[in-house]
Order: sequence, then structure tokens, then C-alpha cells
Amino acid sequence: MPLRFAEPATEAYRFPLTIRHLLDSALTTASDRRIVYRDQGSWTYREFAGRVGRLASLLADLGAEQGMTIAVMDWDSHRYLEAYFAVPMMGAVLQTVNVRLPAPQVAYTLNHAKAEILLVHHDFFPLVEAVLPSLPGVKAVVAIMDGTQGALPAFAKGEYEALSAAASPDYPFEDFDENAVATTFYTTGTTGNPKGVCFTHRQLVLHTLACNAPFGAADGTGFAYKDVYMPLTPMFHVHAWGVPYVATMLGMTQVYPGRYEPEMLCRLHAQHKVTYSHCVPTILRMLLDAAEKTGTDVSGWTITVGGSALSPQLCAEGRRKGMRLIAGYGMSETGPLVSVARIRPGTEGDDAAEIQALTATVPAPLISARIVDDDMNDLPHDGQTRGELVLRAPWLTPCYTGDAKASETLWHGGWMHTQDIATIDPDGYIRIRDRLKDVIKTGGEWIDSIQLEELVATAEGVVEVAVVAMPDAKWGERPLAVVVVRPGAALTLETLNAPIEAAISQGTITRYAKLERFAVVEGLPRTSVGKIDKKLIRATHADNAQAGVA
Amino acid sequence: MPLRFAEPATEAYRFPLTIRHLLDSALTTASDRRIVYRDQGSWTYREFAGRVGRLASLLADLGAEQGMTIAVMDWDSHRYLEAYFAVPMMGAVLQTVNVRLPAPQVAYTLNHAKAEILLVHHDFFPLVEAVLPSLPGVKAVVAIMDGTQGALPAFAKGEYEALSAAASPDYPFEDFDENAVATTFYTTGTTGNPKGVCFTHRQLVLHTLACNAPFGAADGTGFAYKDVYMPLTPMFHVHAWGVPYVATMLGMTQVYPGRYEPEMLCRLHAQHKVTYSHCVPTILRMLLDAAEKTGTDVSGWTITVGGSALSPQLCAEGRRKGMRLIAGYGMSETGPLVSVARIRPGTEGDDAAEIQALTATVPAPLISARIVDDDMNDLPHDGQTRGELVLRAPWLTPCYTGDAKASETLWHGGWMHTQDIATIDPDGYIRIRDRLKDVIKTGGEWIDSIQLEELVATAEGVVEVAVVAMPDAKWGERPLAVVVVRPGAALTLETLNAPIEAAISQGTITRYAKLERFAVVEGLPRTSVGKIDKKLIRATHADNAQAGVA
Repeated sequence: MPLRFAEPATEAYRFPLTIRHLLDSALTTASDRRIVYRDQGSWTYREFAGRVGRLASLLADLGAEQGMTIAVMDWDSHRYLEAYFAVPMMGAVLQTVNVRLPAPQVAYTLNHAKAEILLVHHDFFPLVEAVLPSLPGVKAVVAIMDGTQGALPAFAKGEYEALSAAASPDYPFEDFDENAVATTFYTTGTTGNPKGVCFTHRQLVLHTLACNAPFGAADGTGFAYKDVYMPLTPMFHVHAWGVPYVATMLGMTQVYPGRYEPEMLCRLHAQHKVTYSHCVPTILRMLLDAAEKTGTDVSGWTITVGGSALSPQLCAEGRRKGMRLIAGYGMSETGPLVSVARIRPGTEGDDAAEIQALTATVPAPLISARIVDDDMNDLPHDGQTRGELVLRAPWLTPCYTGDAKASETLWHGGWMHTQDIATIDPDGYIRIRDRLKDVIKTGGEWIDSIQLEELVATAEGVVEVAVVAMPDAKWGERPLAVVVVRPGAALTLETLNAPIEAAISQGTITRYAKLERFAVVEGLPRTSVGKIDKKLIRATHADNAQAGVA
Repeated sequence: MPLRFAEPATEAYRFPLTIRHLLDSALTTASDRRIVYRDQGSWTYREFAGRVGRLASLLADLGAEQGMTIAVMDWDSHRYLEAYFAVPMMGAVLQTVNVRLPAPQVAYTLNHAKAEILLVHHDFFPLVEAVLPSLPGVKAVVAIMDGTQGALPAFAKGEYEALSAAASPDYPFEDFDENAVATTFYTTGTTGNPKGVCFTHRQLVLHTLACNAPFGAADGTGFAYKDVYMPLTPMFHVHAWGVPYVATMLGMTQVYPGRYEPEMLCRLHAQHKVTYSHCVPTILRMLLDAAEKTGTDVSGWTITVGGSALSPQLCAEGRRKGMRLIAGYGMSETGPLVSVARIRPGTEGDDAAEIQALTATVPAPLISARIVDDDMNDLPHDGQTRGELVLRAPWLTPCYTGDAKASETLWHGGWMHTQDIATIDPDGYIRIRDRLKDVIKTGGEWIDSIQLEELVATAEGVVEVAVVAMPDAKWGERPLAVVVVRPGAALTLETLNAPIEAAISQGTITRYAKLERFAVVEGLPRTSVGKIDKKLIRATHADNAQAGVA
């Protein structure tokens, strides 16, 4: 027999999962709650909905229509949140521009995404001025003066607030196909051009609902409608991890901090009693230092930490100040929600056990997570066996825009390849061990370069270290440690291997991890976003290594 | 321009919202958690998944296929949960049979739903034996002996556990169109045949995700993966309010109590430290009495109360015993989630304010809720103005199966008509005031029959009362109080009107509410499910009323 389908009433509403519906219950239940922007103002959800309508109207006046890309270059603001809603709700595509990229890459992403209208904060006027000549597709730039009094630049069609004030708040938003693209942005690799990912209305609505499950868990790690939210991951970066959509759906009080300035962040936190944020470890470090300096009480502040691993040390430090810190894992391609930490039931109050659990993550609802070998065979969930983490979920990017080859690689075998090497333990806790391209495959074993680096870093005289794989005729690959040495220290292979041998005897790393060679360098090369450029290190040392010089 | 659509990678997984995916993260993160059945056994999620596979295999052996209806008549059990997953996951339709209906109505619903295979607990063998001759479509009955040793009835093809043990745990579940129907069941009105509603995979997955938001709210009213769940609303009734799907998705420990026996419920609660349940007020009353009798500590037990209004008195009584009680609102047609209570931020700890908030409800995410007049015009959210509550959400039944006329009425104007009269306050709290058909429309005002009944019930000498609308040439309608009087009491219009006049002078009811007539009866007529049959009362008294006798 065929599957059974219902015969809907003629007028039964075919409810598409479009972003506009995320506002519905907030408008009913939180219409007087406020969305705050720095120390410059606040708006109720009712006013916010009017401003969303005005933004759509002003964009339409500038020629915006369905399917068009509209790009935003702004700090985290209520305006950015307005664009999160207005642009997709009118059927257009929101491009969140990574303003930290070099100008040529910004130009590349705007051209590649076919952006036709730009909303630009005055801090980025020089950047826009530099790239505009290479952006033939851009029809209009709206200047965001952000309360300052300067003259409008010649390239601007008008100013955000002035245009908004003159536009109608009653834009006739309609429902449409939930599979329409809502947002796009670009990921940055260590080489080559940025790659564009995109997300549909359906994907973002599902991402929002699924986010709410683990983040909203009633175990002291989550949030609810009564919380006060302040993002500390830029809104151009993977939808600020999707939380602005969740916070709006729940009608939470929201605080947008503009450009991240440590003392402003502390002040906003104190003034609005912020209870929930999310950030990368670097920002957390900065927050803790700023809080120390300004005497800010950060207790009761729940922060999801992602982007890089939340170390147990940093987690413990934040907890000592009364923060609740939770690891999160995801990437640009995943919307980003994949997995979130949670306390292991029965271990509540046991500090070490809580830190252990809170620095790993478990899959969110509707995430299918596997670890697999090179042939996509499942590997055991024993907390030890390493494999590539591959995923299915309803909100993963379907492709890299206009890059069929990279898209096919991403989705090879019907699963999205994270290129992260992970272990999964019997209770589902995922730990990311290394990047696939950085792992060292030697004698049938996988060695995490990160684990090896952590060991070598403890050796006497080592300032900084990167471990990379070098091709090896007999073993496939062998590790090479590239080390920055403390002035005056005499580094030997024995010194470097001391902590590795200790780990081997404790059984925490394979005996194949023992080094046969190392290279001493002045400093480690880094990428534009500050990560160690292992690709360059591999290339630099390949010849030496093959010649046996290192 | 047209909407923009992505060009997915060839192998990009088109993730449909099918019920099988609700199991994925539970299997990764909670494979050793247990699902308990009374005092008869428990199974880990890993074992549960195997039993789901076995059930699908045994059903396939009996001829089950996609699109076929498979009906369950069981008490709340791990088996029922297996059917919640196995039947829809194989593309068949799960009919949850209301075993409390009279036999002819049970037969009607099975025939109307085209049920071909029945899974029947031995308590319902007499019922099945009575109706089987009128069920020509039924091809196979599986007997559930539930650990008892009796002989299989002649009509059974086999026994659940025996067939399950012989079947393969590895049924090849596949994904398919998320819009396929997953479940069906029948609503019971006060007259006419039951009406069938149905829900698709997509609807149930979205309902599950949306349930998790308000119920899982981190405000002390919700639940999370660490909770222990026991349903106290039958699994045949609107998916046990959808919570078994949520509990499974989150990997919660689940306790299925079989037939509801107060002392067993208390024992299971104590043994497994149940922290979350849901029920109607009658069951809550029974629980509180049983807890008193057995000395069971019910503190820390969170219970969502729906079906009928959670009265402030009952709420307060449960809270005094340490329960956390939360009102919920929904109906068969809505899956059932519409709205759930929450504490008003800032009033935490204020007992009266909490009770006030917890006995009303606010819309869940993705619920569009309006109150409207007869012409579907919006009415103000002032907490006073009454209108019909109409809804949109992605999980409302698209129709009454095979009843086009009732379906069109349900969805008239593109909104689902609840036929409930409600107020909404500025913070979104919905209070259900009356059923549309019971409200009294007089002189341009709406009077809630329920409010009027509550007032009249306090009058001296009144044992029980129903207030119904009678047609009136001048006012449209006027209220008629039909009263059961305490033996020996002399009831007058003045006595009855005393509390009403007090309410009028306090401004809590319109002056049109004052009665001009009443009727004294021996007892009030009730429907099969125990509700007062106002339709019959109206019919009985219509002639008298028109003749001015009452």
C-alpha cells in the first residue's frame, strides 16, 4: 500500500516553517519585554516588530525583492536583529559579512553572494569605500550612523534611522516556501577563498527549536524566557550561534553590546543582570580579566563556550567566580548547533565530575552523530577510539554555494563530514580530539597532534610547539615537533620525549607517539584568524623531513 | 525575482521530520537509561530500540505494510511506547483506541479508521470479542497477556511477547515523506459519532520539539533529561499529550504504570523517584487522596494539569504538599499542545501570584493565538474581553477524517476554531472562560455560563447547578439556572441572585447576568465521559422557557 496522506480542509492552514513565526508567541507573551542596545536605547518587542516592518519597507523602497541578497556589516545590535528577521521574512537572503576579513576577501564574499544592498555601520565606511569599486552588483548602501553626527558618505543612499522613521511599520509579510534560502555567510579556511554556506527558513526554525532543548534544559545549565541574553559571539558568525532566534522566540530580554569592549560588557552585564551569553574561550578569558579589573560580579552568568575547546582549567576558573560554563560544539556548516555539554545525572555538586562533563558535549535532538573510519564504518563509542565525526540533522548546510566539488566532498556518503576527529563515550559525550588533516596516522594508529602538543609543551625549555605529520615510507606518517625554545635552553630529543614516555607508560597515548625528530624555529606561523598554520608548517618542513635533516 | 533555493550536493541528506529520528540522540546519549513497566520489568533504550524493531518485524509478518492502520488497546505500557514508534516508523498509521467508549463506538472508530491489525491487552478481550463480528476489515489480533498465564483467545494470531521474541530486532526502517499520516484517534462529542483526527510525522516531530520549550523551561516548572517521567493521562488520549515522544527524545527515565491504580501509582512514584507527570484534575484529586492515605511524599513532583481548568484551590492544595503544578491547555485537534503555564517573572516566591500564573497558560512557540468575534475580528488582549480562541500552528489536525463538512467548519477562515471562549491578558496569559456553545450572549454582552455557575453554586441551599442560554426575543439569549436543591431548602430568585448581585457590584460580572428564572431538577444529566450535558438541558427546558414557565 502507499503511505497514507490526510485530506486537509480547504482552508486548513499549511503552516510553513518560516522565520516570521518565531516572533508570534513572543509578541503575544512578551510584547513589553525589551531589546537593549548598549547604553543607547531599548525597544519593546512590540516596537521591535514595528521596526522589523520599517526595515522591510525601507529595503523595498531601495529595490529589495524576494531572492535578493542583502548584506549587513554592523557590530552586534538591535538593528542586526531587525535584519535577522526583516530580510528573510521578505523572502530575501541575509548575508552576514565577516568584517574581520581582509578587504579583498570581504569583496570576494559580497560579489560571490551577489549582494545588492549593504547596511553598513560607520566604523566600516573605510572598508566599504575600499571595496565598492570592485562590487558592480551593489545598488544601494544604507549608512548606519549609530547616533553619531557625521556627514553621510557619498556612497550612501540614506541613513538607517532616518529611512526607517520614514518607512511604514506595516510591511505585508507573507508566508512562502519554507525551503527558500534565508541566510548566507562565508567560512574561512587556512587557504583559498572563503566558502559560502546557506540556510533555509525551515532549517533555521528547526535549529531554533532544537537549540531550545539542550540550552533550555532544566539542569542549571540552560536558559528560559525569564533570562537576560547578551551575545558575545559576533552576529556575523553563524547566526551568533542561533541564539538571537531562540531568545526572540522565547521573548527573553536581550542586550546587544555593539562592538565588544570589555568594560562596556561588564557594565551591561551588571546593569541588565545578564544571565546568559555564549563566546569563544578567548572572549571568556578577556571577560574574566575585565571582571577582575572592574570588580564585576559574574556569578549566575551562564555562558556556552565554543569555537575552540573549553579547557578544564578555564572552566574551573570561571566556576570559582560563580559562572556556569557549558561547552558547545558546532561549525559554520552546521548552523552551528551539534552538541552541548550537560551535567552527568547523579554527579551534581561534584566539582571535578561536573567540569569533566561540562567540557564535553552530547548531541542535540535530531542530530545523528557517528564516528567512522576512512571507509565510513562505525567505530565503537568507548571514549577511546578516534574517528571522523560525521553528521545528519535537518539544519546542516546543503552545499557550499557554487562549489560543487567541495559540496560533494562535504556530503560524501550521505553524511556531513566535520573533518574533526572525535571520541564518543558510552553516555554519548563527544570529545573533539583533533582536526582530521592534523591527525598523525602512523603504524595503523591515530595520534592526536593536539594531545602530543600538550605533552611536548610541558617539556623543559619549550615555549610553544606544533606537531605535524610527515610522510614516512615505513609507517605512513610520523610526528614532527616544531618547537620554539626558551632562550638559553638546551633542547634534546630526550627532554622532549620525557613527558611523552611518561604518558606512554600511563597508557594515555600510544607508544608510536614517541618522537624521533624535531625542528627548532623562531616562531610559529599563524593564519589571519590567529590559528597556528599547520599546513604551512607541513609544507615548510616537508623537504627537510624527507631529507632526514630535521 | 523568485525566491532563492540552494543547490544541494548530490548526496546531501534530505532530512525528513520522521518519528524515527526522535530516537537518535536518546540512543547516543541515554542508551543505558531505562523504561519501566509497573513492577513487571524494565528495558534500556538500547533494548527498547530492539523491541521496536521486533514489533515492526512481527507486524510485517502479520501482513502490515505502509499506509495500513494498526490499532492498540492497552493500558499505559512500554509496549504502547513501542507501538508509538514502530507503527509510524514502518509507514503505517497508529490508531490509539479509546477503550472507555461504549462497545458500538469502539467498533465505529475501528471501522472508520480501517484498522486491520489490533494489539489487545487481555483486559479488553471481552470488548474485542463483542465487536469483532462487526469488524470485517480486521485481519489479525495480537493478544497481550501481560505476564498472565491464561490461554490465548481463539481470535488471536499469537501473543505479543512470544511473537516479539521470534521476530528480528533489525527491521529496516527507512525515511520517507514527512507528511505521511503517523497517528489517528477519535474525539468524543456529547452527540453523534466520534470524529477522527490525524497527525503526520512532521507534525509530531514539531510538536515534540515545541513541547520541550515550555515544559523544559528552566523556571522550576519544567523537565529535562535527568527527570523521571510517568504519564497519568492515558496513552490513547492525544498521544498522552505528546510527552512520551519528548521523554524518549531526551532519553529520560520513563515509568509506565499500566492501568491507573492509586496505590500502584504512589508506589511507582516512590520507587523510581518520579519527577514529572501530567493528568486531568480528577486524577490529581485521586493522587492527593491516595498520597494522604498511603503517606507518600509527593514533594518535588511536577505535574502538568489539563483537560479541565486547574482550580486555584486544587493548585494550592498540591503545592502545600510540595508538588509543582502547572496548567496546560490543548485538545484532541491540537496534538494537544497549545499553551502552558509559567511563573510570571519577578513574582517567584509569591504564592498567590504564582498560583494565579500557574492556573493560566501562555502560547507555546509557533502557536499563533487570537481571540476573535463572530466575524473573526481581533479582540483586545486586556484580560477582560471574551472571544473565541482560534489558532494556527504546524501541528493542528488538518481535518476530521472523512467528514468534509466538519473539517471546513473547524478551519473556517483559515484558523482552527477551538470553540472555547477565552480572554488573553497583556502578558499573553490565556484563560478559558467557557465553551462557545455554552456562553450566553445577551444584550451584546457575553456571559460565561461557568462563571455564573460558580456564583450560583455559592447560594444558600444549592447542591449543584448548570446555567444554559435560552432564546429571548428581546435580548437574544437569557441565562436559565437549572438547580439541584438541598432537601428542605426553600430556594428563591433572591437567594440565587444574591451572590450574582454581589459580583455585579464588585464589577466582576456584567449586570446582564442577573437571573430572571430558574428551574429545579432532581439531578443534572451527564454525558458518557461524566460532563454535564448542557445540550440536553437546553433541549429539555426550551419549551418551558419559551412558554415562560421556568
